[in-house]
Amino acid sequence: MHYAAILGFGTVGSGVAEALMINADTMNRKTDGITLKYIVDVRDFPDSPFAGLLTKDFSVVENDPDVDMVVETIGGVGIAAEFTRRALRAGKSVITSNKELVAKHGCELMALAEEHGANYLFEASVGGGIPMLRTVVYNLGAEKITEFFGILNGTTNYILTQMFRNGMSFSAALARARELGYSEADPTADIDGIDACRKVAILCSLITGRQTPVDTISVEGISGVSVEDVEFAASMGCTIRLLGHAYFGGDGKVRACVAPHLIPSKVLLSGVEDVMNGLHIRSEAAGDVMLYGAGAGKLPTASAIVSDMFCLAGNRRDGAAFSWGPPSEERCGNISDLPFSWYVRVSPADGWEEKQSGLHLFAQKDGKLAYYTDEMTEEALLSRFAGQVILSRFRIIR
Amino acid sequence: MHYAAILGFGTVGSGVAEALMINADTMNRKTDGITLKYIVDVRDFPDSPFAGLLTKDFSVVENDPDVDMVVETIGGVGIAAEFTRRALRAGKSVITSNKELVAKHGCELMALAEEHGANYLFEASVGGGIPMLRTVVYNLGAEKITEFFGILNGTTNYILTQMFRNGMSFSAALARARELGYSEADPTADIDGIDACRKVAILCSLITGRQTPVDTISVEGISGVSVEDVEFAASMGCTIRLLGHAYFGGDGKVRACVAPHLIPSKVLLSGVEDVMNGLHIRSEAAGDVMLYGAGAGKLPTASAIVSDMFCLAGNRRDGAAFSWGPPSEERCGNISDLPFSWYVRVSPADGWEEKQSGLHLFAQKDGKLAYYTDEMTEEALLSRFAGQVILSRFRIIR
Repeated sequence: MHYAAILGFGTVGSGVAEALMINADTMNRKTDGITLKYIVDVRDFPDSPFAGLLTKDFSVVENDPDVDMVVETIGGVGIAAEFTRRALRAGKSVITSNKELVAKHGCELMALAEEHGANYLFEASVGGGIPMLRTVVYNLGAEKITEFFGILNGTTNYILTQMFRNGMSFSAALARARELGYSEADPTADIDGIDACRKVAILCSLITGRQTPVDTISVEGISGVSVEDVEFAASMGCTIRLLGHAYFGGDGKVRACVAPHLIPSKVLLSGVEDVMNGLHIRSEAAGDVMLYGAGAGKLPTASAIVSDMFCLAGNRRDGAAFSWGPPSEERCGNISDLPFSWYVRVSPADGWEEKQSGLHLFAQKDGKLAYYTDEMTEEALLSRFAGQVILSRFRIIR
Repeated sequence: MHYAAILGFGTVGSGVAEALMINADTMNRKTDGITLKYIVDVRDFPDSPFAGLLTKDFSVVENDPDVDMVVETIGGVGIAAEFTRRALRAGKSVITSNKELVAKHGCELMALAEEHGANYLFEASVGGGIPMLRTVVYNLGAEKITEFFGILNGTTNYILTQMFRNGMSFSAALARARELGYSEADPTADIDGIDACRKVAILCSLITGRQTPVDTISVEGISGVSVEDVEFAASMGCTIRLLGHAYFGGDGKVRACVAPHLIPSKVLLSGVEDVMNGLHIRSEAAGDVMLYGAGAGKLPTASAIVSDMFCLAGNRRDGAAFSWGPPSEERCGNISDLPFSWYVRVSPADGWEEKQSGLHLFAQKDGKLAYYTDEMTEEALLSRFAGQVILSRFRIIR
């Protein structure tokens, strides 16, 4: 029997307590079983069915030799980092959904875990209930992954879906997302692509075995996507989605970005709507593989945490491990080096010559011109439009 | 270092040799490495770059203590079963794409492997390059899976896609599939749903831990799908696909079928076209998860075999294992017990009363009527249409 403690009894933390109950039969049949022994939170929850497990004192968990799994759902890089380090030093494995902490200090924390015979697992930090991490590390672990692109943030996908489906403006769609509780009180990390960037960093680090620092990933949010872009994209059979997009070159470099992209309808990811997430992975032998599911939400996120606990409880500690080494500057490339087909919306000024090599005008409206281009780098693209005000430019997925 | 032999140098076998070369860097970085030592085939391949590895004598492999992995791509349940048993008895792990053998003798072969300290692995037997099996066994291993439905056969999906996209008849689309090499010389196992049925049996056995005999799965192929069905389905925003579909009830019973289904466009699987495959899994905590990719083809299938070899070479023998126990009659239910919403096409005869409870007429053409129904069992459905000739009846995915 394994004993677990949950740190932080918010949405995800209480979801883990619930998911452990839902999955108890399966867990007991396939593993040594897990008993939830403590929940650590500074708040009181007198009416919770788990009230008897609550404590405000983390050192009770830290000093209980029975506890071998600690679930950290506090969030942020402050107290969460401290408790994680203390738990790992006490030889307890830590399981988390905290993408900020993993993207920033994952390398250090995994090394600390290894040093103390424990694991630091974080399937829930990317893609909610979709097993994205274990798929890239294990299921496709033998593959030369050449590219991935994914919808990794539910809030922005909800907003873009509303803009597409109902012609809503960005701000109206954001207001709607807030009403429905899909958006944080401060939606900046979602809207500006910061949340997705952390997830791209985690995926790239796992794929390459080297930490990919978040500041090596080019990031652009969705506030520049207009209803006009949505209409132009739809007229060429594409949706616009905020994608995390990474290339793994033969030169060993990772080139990644988070940015709005056009996705042709023939690519299945174009149909991923609302708060759902999806990850499309391209590799040399397996070809195209796509994973889809609930990228957020209480139970799906909790289920991913429980999947990590399941690995540990099944005594598959080595088979469950995630790891990567420290960053290597020469491995960090810039996605601007790579050629893409682009969508461009411009408001042409004097002297604009419509016909330039590699540009294809496909629509116009209210004096705005919409182009798609042959494959070219961002620099080559900008030189074509020198002196013009580019209103939007988004990459088009192949 | 591990040493491997490939039995059968056909499409998949030669793909494995190729995929091992493509993935050599990744394998060497993450595992102890694998060297391909023998290829066993009765034929000669003097021009193959692997000609030096070829032998006609399986006992060379059997008696070489260096070889710890044997890849069986012979197919069928004759010589393939014999060589598999001999390899396992010699303590060598066997990796295969042979769904017929796995569905029929998997339980015995996994027990034999265990007895001799080896593994019997078959990720490639279902879903080609898509890691379907490891996902249900490990990534979603803690989950209470309640239902899955999947496009598990590329040939039939190609035919149905052609019927939808180009209005082709079934026989014209089959002829086209043959021209393109998507169909076997004898396409019966594909068309009649037998291939998909074996894959459903393997998935159900892994999910429940009990062998699901193929003859407990209700099977209907696609030869009854007409162009008229395709048109009616499209008019209600659905595609028709051959699905493997299984329910895992609270009573412990598995209820499964292979049959054409209508899939509404809001379900992502409806967009899986041509020879691509997809599996939609519903579970209590994780919610909906879908996997998509190349379900067949030389390199994708080979990549799945290599993913099994990767697990073994990474010394994750326990973390890689598949297993299930012998069948249990009380666990085998009948999908006819369950209520569904149905699509029905009828050519009404005298005395037909159009308006009956639970039936909704949504289209008519050339004297044929098309209905969708409220949720009801097959028996209840048939009683509504007593005395009428039902031309087609297909379940509709929720």
